[in-house]
Amino acid sequence: MSQTAGESVLDAEQLQALMLRAPYHRWLGIAVTAVSLDAIEVRATWREEWIANADTRHTHGGILASLIDLTADFVLATRLGRAVPTIDMRVDYHRMARPGDLLVRGSVVKAGRQISVSEARVLDLDGMLIASGRGTYLTSATQSG
Amino acid sequence: MSQTAGESVLDAEQLQALMLRAPYHRWLGIAVTAVSLDAIEVRATWREEWIANADTRHTHGGILASLIDLTADFVLATRLGRAVPTIDMRVDYHRMARPGDLLVRGSVVKAGRQISVSEARVLDLDGMLIASGRGTYLTSATQSG
Amino acid sequence: MSQTAGESVLDAEQLQALMLRAPYHRWLGIAVTAVSLDAIEVRATWREEWIANADTRHTHGGILASLIDLTADFVLATRLGRAVPTIDMRVDYHRMARPGDLLVRGSVVKAGRQISVSEARVLDLDGMLIASGRGTYLTSATQSG
Amino acid sequence: MSQTAGESVLDAEQLQALMLRAPYHRWLGIAVTAVSLDAIEVRATWREEWIANADTRHTHGGILASLIDLTADFVLATRLGRAVPTIDMRVDYHRMARPGDLLVRGSVVKAGRQISVSEARVLDLDGMLIASGRGTYLTSATQSG
Repeated sequence: MSQTAGESVLDAEQLQALMLRAPYHRWLGIAVTAVSLDAIEVRATWREEWIANADTRHTHGGILASLIDLTADFVLATRLGRAVPTIDMRVDYHRMARPGDLLVRGSVVKAGRQISVSEARVLDLDGMLIASGRGTYLTSATQSG
Repeated sequence: MSQTAGESVLDAEQLQALMLRAPYHRWLGIAVTAVSLDAIEVRATWREEWIANADTRHTHGGILASLIDLTADFVLATRLGRAVPTIDMRVDYHRMARPGDLLVRGSVVKAGRQISVSEARVLDLDGMLIASGRGTYLTSATQSG
Repeated sequence: MSQTAGESVLDAEQLQALMLRAPYHRWLGIAVTAVSLDAIEVRATWREEWIANADTRHTHGGILASLIDLTADFVLATRLGRAVPTIDMRVDYHRMARPGDLLVRGSVVKAGRQISVSEARVLDLDGMLIASGRGTYLTSATQSG
Repeated sequence: MSQTAGESVLDAEQLQALMLRAPYHRWLGIAVTAVSLDAIEVRATWREEWIANADTRHTHGGILASLIDLTADFVLATRLGRAVPTIDMRVDYHRMARPGDLLVRGSVVKAGRQISVSEARVLDLDGMLIASGRGTYLTSATQSG
């Protein structure tokens, strides 16, 4: 397939196939809902094991962090055709997530040859902002980490 | 039980019982292995669903982030007797984790009345440093987030 | 002056006056160039003392971190009428800044009653992205930190 | 000069000379007070321009961030013999700093061939913890950023 410069390498179906090679992404019930050059949206499928607190039943912060990391990583993968190792990641928690599926929108902050930065926002199905954050990725690596 | 000031409120058994009220912590196979006033150690039990990459079989960064968040949170819980909401969290990834259980050591950086900061390090069973990071917690909240 | 709900409390002149009460902001040569409800732009005036390296003459990362912190803080101040204490801050460095003035664009990520998150991007006068980051602020505090 | 593996390359005097090549470090009044393989301590000399708030006269968070970045960077420089570019940096603010000199203690979290992580704590002269944080550095670069 010929590619013009700057064109997204992977379409939604290809990106989802790549993401679902990871058992953890399958467990999170990841589906790719939109892809463009500098942005992706994924949906994650709620499950009982996500719960952080038996009383409030809100989703654990570690799940939200996982969604931000994987979405910020794979927004870069659409250009690169592969996942890249995370150097570090930061998450801000804005609001408790009630039980239910979540949408995660990722976008590129800076695509570098060696180091790239991207960000992601987690929303519930009412469009409320649950968490947001950023990851720094080793774009020069040839194997994911 | 009487408490002198600054004494840890929860012992290892109580802390583990509190942690395992969360379905996500049960899924992560969390066991508390050590508790003192300003530090805890927990062990997490590897499972196939942690895998990030079918070829390398390393553990997903979202799992490591989850372990850092929960350990940094519960090192504060030993004083407070309850989990507290995470304001934000940051994780540095140092080395790929091969399949296997992980140890996480948490310690308090600054215990405040309103805001507290704690940190955690994830080690494999060979003692290699896999990831490390920090969380900021809303100590003044009466309910976990 | 009457205020409708959600309207920006401070205009550019008032915001600049508030910012320039800080000797450090005067040293950074801060001028407010745009203000809206959820975004501000400030300009910082280059000086020899910003230099990190006598050979490359690029601007020190601590200066860029300062610009991100103050801009992310004062984008919240336009609503609140006062600066608020920074709980924590994170900065990504994208590109060396050559000697010259810098523009910093701040915007609100989440305005909360107790905790707020905002972000800022530092650009050179050619519009190149130099650094970007986020701060978490204690909105409930009545005095700046 | 012959070097055994793992030995610190720079002593305190050499490290200070390297640090003071930066005009910004001279402005911050940096003096190196201790150096070992994995840790350094520097002192920064208070000046009126550090003030964030004319009423409280506390030191600006951008100054504290600068001290953390430069100390975390130069703790790596003692091994490498040169400063390295900061990829990103995070700072937690624990307590307002009253006017006065500050001590900053840096230590290595993970020294990597390509990427390294180090941390630093800012103390006032009474030993109170003012701020702390971490930086991630591009160890493989041959020129500082």
